Amino acid sequence: MDKTPSLDFLFRPKTLAIAGVSANIGSILTLPQRYIRSLIDFGFKGQIYPVHPAGGEIFGLKVYKDIEEISDSIDYVVAAIPARLTPQLLTGCARKKVKAVHLFTSGFSEIEDEVGKMLESEVVDIARKNGIRILGPNCMGIYCPETGLTFAVDYPEQGGFPNISGPLGLISQSGGNTMFCIREASTRGIFFSKAISYGNATDLNESDFLEYFTDDRNTKIIAIYIEGVKDGPRFIKALKRTASLKPVIVYKSGNTESGIRACASHTSAMAGSANIWRGFLKQAGAVPVHSMEEIVDVSLAFLKMPVPKGRNTVVIGSGGGVGVQAADECTEAGLILPVLPQDVRIKLRNIYGTEAGSIFRNPVDIPGFAAKDKSITAVKSIADSDQIDSLIMHFPFDLWGIIDRKEIIWQYVESVLELAGLVKKPVAVVLHYCATAMAKQLAAEVQEKFVNAGLPVYPGFKRAASAINKYLQYHERGENG
Amino acid sequence: MDKTPSLDFLFRPKTLAIAGVSANIGSILTLPQRYIRSLIDFGFKGQIYPVHPAGGEIFGLKVYKDIEEISDSIDYVVAAIPARLTPQLLTGCARKKVKAVHLFTSGFSEIEDEVGKMLESEVVDIARKNGIRILGPNCMGIYCPETGLTFAVDYPEQGGFPNISGPLGLISQSGGNTMFCIREASTRGIFFSKAISYGNATDLNESDFLEYFTDDRNTKIIAIYIEGVKDGPRFIKALKRTASLKPVIVYKSGNTESGIRACASHTSAMAGSANIWRGFLKQAGAVPVHSMEEIVDVSLAFLKMPVPKGRNTVVIGSGGGVGVQAADECTEAGLILPVLPQDVRIKLRNIYGTEAGSIFRNPVDIPGFAAKDKSITAVKSIADSDQIDSLIMHFPFDLWGIIDRKEIIWQYVESVLELAGLVKKPVAVVLHYCATAMAKQLAAEVQEKFVNAGLPVYPGFKRAASAINKYLQYHERGENG
Repeated sequence: MDKTPSLDFLFRPKTLAIAGVSANIGSILTLPQRYIRSLIDFGFKGQIYPVHPAGGEIFGLKVYKDIEEISDSIDYVVAAIPARLTPQLLTGCARKKVKAVHLFTSGFSEIEDEVGKMLESEVVDIARKNGIRILGPNCMGIYCPETGLTFAVDYPEQGGFPNISGPLGLISQSGGNTMFCIREASTRGIFFSKAISYGNATDLNESDFLEYFTDDRNTKIIAIYIEGVKDGPRFIKALKRTASLKPVIVYKSGNTESGIRACASHTSAMAGSANIWRGFLKQAGAVPVHSMEEIVDVSLAFLKMPVPKGRNTVVIGSGGGVGVQAADECTEAGLILPVLPQDVRIKLRNIYGTEAGSIFRNPVDIPGFAAKDKSITAVKSIADSDQIDSLIMHFPFDLWGIIDRKEIIWQYVESVLELAGLVKKPVAVVLHYCATAMAKQLAAEVQEKFVNAGLPVYPGFKRAASAINKYLQYHERGENG
Repeated sequence: MDKTPSLDFLFRPKTLAIAGVSANIGSILTLPQRYIRSLIDFGFKGQIYPVHPAGGEIFGLKVYKDIEEISDSIDYVVAAIPARLTPQLLTGCARKKVKAVHLFTSGFSEIEDEVGKMLESEVVDIARKNGIRILGPNCMGIYCPETGLTFAVDYPEQGGFPNISGPLGLISQSGGNTMFCIREASTRGIFFSKAISYGNATDLNESDFLEYFTDDRNTKIIAIYIEGVKDGPRFIKALKRTASLKPVIVYKSGNTESGIRACASHTSAMAGSANIWRGFLKQAGAVPVHSMEEIVDVSLAFLKMPVPKGRNTVVIGSGGGVGVQAADECTEAGLILPVLPQDVRIKLRNIYGTEAGSIFRNPVDIPGFAAKDKSITAVKSIADSDQIDSLIMHFPFDLWGIIDRKEIIWQYVESVLELAGLVKKPVAVVLHYCATAMAKQLAAEVQEKFVNAGLPVYPGFKRAASAINKYLQYHERGENG
């Protein structure tokens, strides 16, 4: 596994030309202008060559009138020009011996239009004959923090998104979903080796990228958003092999008649039957999920929690009604909430004096977490029990008597942070019941603290419990198979 | 139905005494102190009498040493004293001819303790013999914006929660859930006639309040959070009657073994079988939901949307992958997304020139909503089609090229607001894909605009579609029954 995967050149171009960038900057940057801006801001390590028939200069870079006017050799070309002009561009790329073309451009096989389909096959033809690999069309392309290659413009200006690499590799048929996933993951402490938005997959497809990530040493977990496969038998083989080596999380969309139709309109994908996919993913040993958020939820369990010994979970937090909901949702998601052993309950009663206003069974209701030492001793006693495999610590923000007393919230945060260091078992945090703008903002601040401490944070029990359950299922599969 | 319901006196006490309020104010107010503070801040229209054996003064009010020391007659007593002292308080209340006692106090039948159970029956005994109605124990009591009676302290200081009444009546066995629901509802434009947190229901129970709301003219929709009923046959009869007159939304928790156990620990409720409840709610014509958020989701449909003629829904917004998810989630929730008729699609192609980069089938992908006039004409053409019964307009915040261009977001908001006035069909708004703090804040601002314009806003397709589906099912039931 120590060889460099053959597609590695895609992620580290030394020279990049982008066709379709006008030097005229209006009140809003055009998409290709923003693409260049983001490469510069993201610290792209290669040379950037804007191309546009009108020439000029943009962001201090000369705009070439034609790709063949560039004297440097070109590794990677981004096409942001109308579909009808792409065959001509590809012919130029062939003469320049370009290795890869990313077709940002849409208007090919995904629209119901014979011209679009013909254009797509013409472009592929030229590429195949000249050894050019095509990414797309109709996609955002590659995000690779290591080399600064990115399509990820419009990051929050407050520096919320650092240009750092991580263990997750994302293969996504949707550019918007890729963008959202990168942002959602980063706010929850997960970063990427690479993320690839690959659109219509007319040449490079899901299997190419899956094989790439299988061999990529920097990728520990793979996540896929897929609408339909281009080459079924190859994908089946690739997924089985990969899933035996690394966790593969798969969000297959297009599970209903209208969803299948939407796939065709979006990326010309043939979505296939939801039942067949379900069986196939299970057999291949992949982890099936149902949204981009769930990709992040499940990745968090894999990356931020040791594997729980079993399903016995304790839920600890404030609120009685919330506790009932926690018990229902965790159990329905496949976890078990055993009653705390009598000796632990006696310890808790000794700590708090009485059970009135509290609940010491499981879920455990410790109002307020106001007394830090007490709560640390209490949770430690619970976690030490050999009948407990993992802990879910929750904090409901918009409950009576809490929201306005911020000191209690920060005491709670301190307690949980200290506990996370003391407890030798997997811990997940649920921050929820955020109705008001104030609660939402406080929850975001608290989340940041926990994320920085390496804790997995979820916005509800359902999502936390389901992620832990899928994590357990993945490892049980290993034991049973 | 024009008679005043017999329990109406509970909501409009002229005099209220609260037992257990120390005049010593520490760094944090005690719960009973905060209760008084909130009554004052909320503009309670009656007289407040704090009671505590140590006497003194708090918030400008004299603290009486004993309830019998008050010369005024007392309508309503709140007990915030230890459980063991409640029989003595009740005896005093009997001598004062108090009509209602709200036992804030916990430590009764909900804890596994014979003393707790005995105390609860002793208190009920005294109450019954003296014509006193008991609310609780172990509950937050009554929230009634009309009279300023409230337990709702700790509201956001920025005035996010106005003291106004609305059409929703809430009956809830959990105080925390009540508090959260009031806040969640208010941020989404729904207000309350009354909300009642009733805890262990040792005297006044779910059926009393259900019957009250049935006859209460200010309550148009009833929502219930329930862990277990006290009097099954009476509740069955009451629910059937009520559901034939007003929509009743029911969140029954305690559906799993551990959930059922949690109900007993929380409010000593016998939760009963989930299957029996499911069948019973359906037969009674209630709307079953599975969280406090869903109570608000479904109430929004009932209160902010005309009844759609059928299930044919169009989803309009930005993003291809998001559109596939929308199609799957809406269809799975019971809605139908028909392909737009050919004539509408031709109109859209004429408006936008090409379908490249857009999708005009359904879901409809109109990138950016940048050109306001175009998008208004386009959505109007879609809405005018007799093959469309309702519209879901969605806006994903953390998609490529949008978040940092705020002007596009506000153009979008303006377009949707203008459209909501032009379109004669039900419209729901989905604001989602908010990963970053910046997106979350923008989404909250946009939500406020839409809420103020009377639009129902949801944080995802699943929740919007499921609410619309339950709204439709409710009205279909009417047609079929």
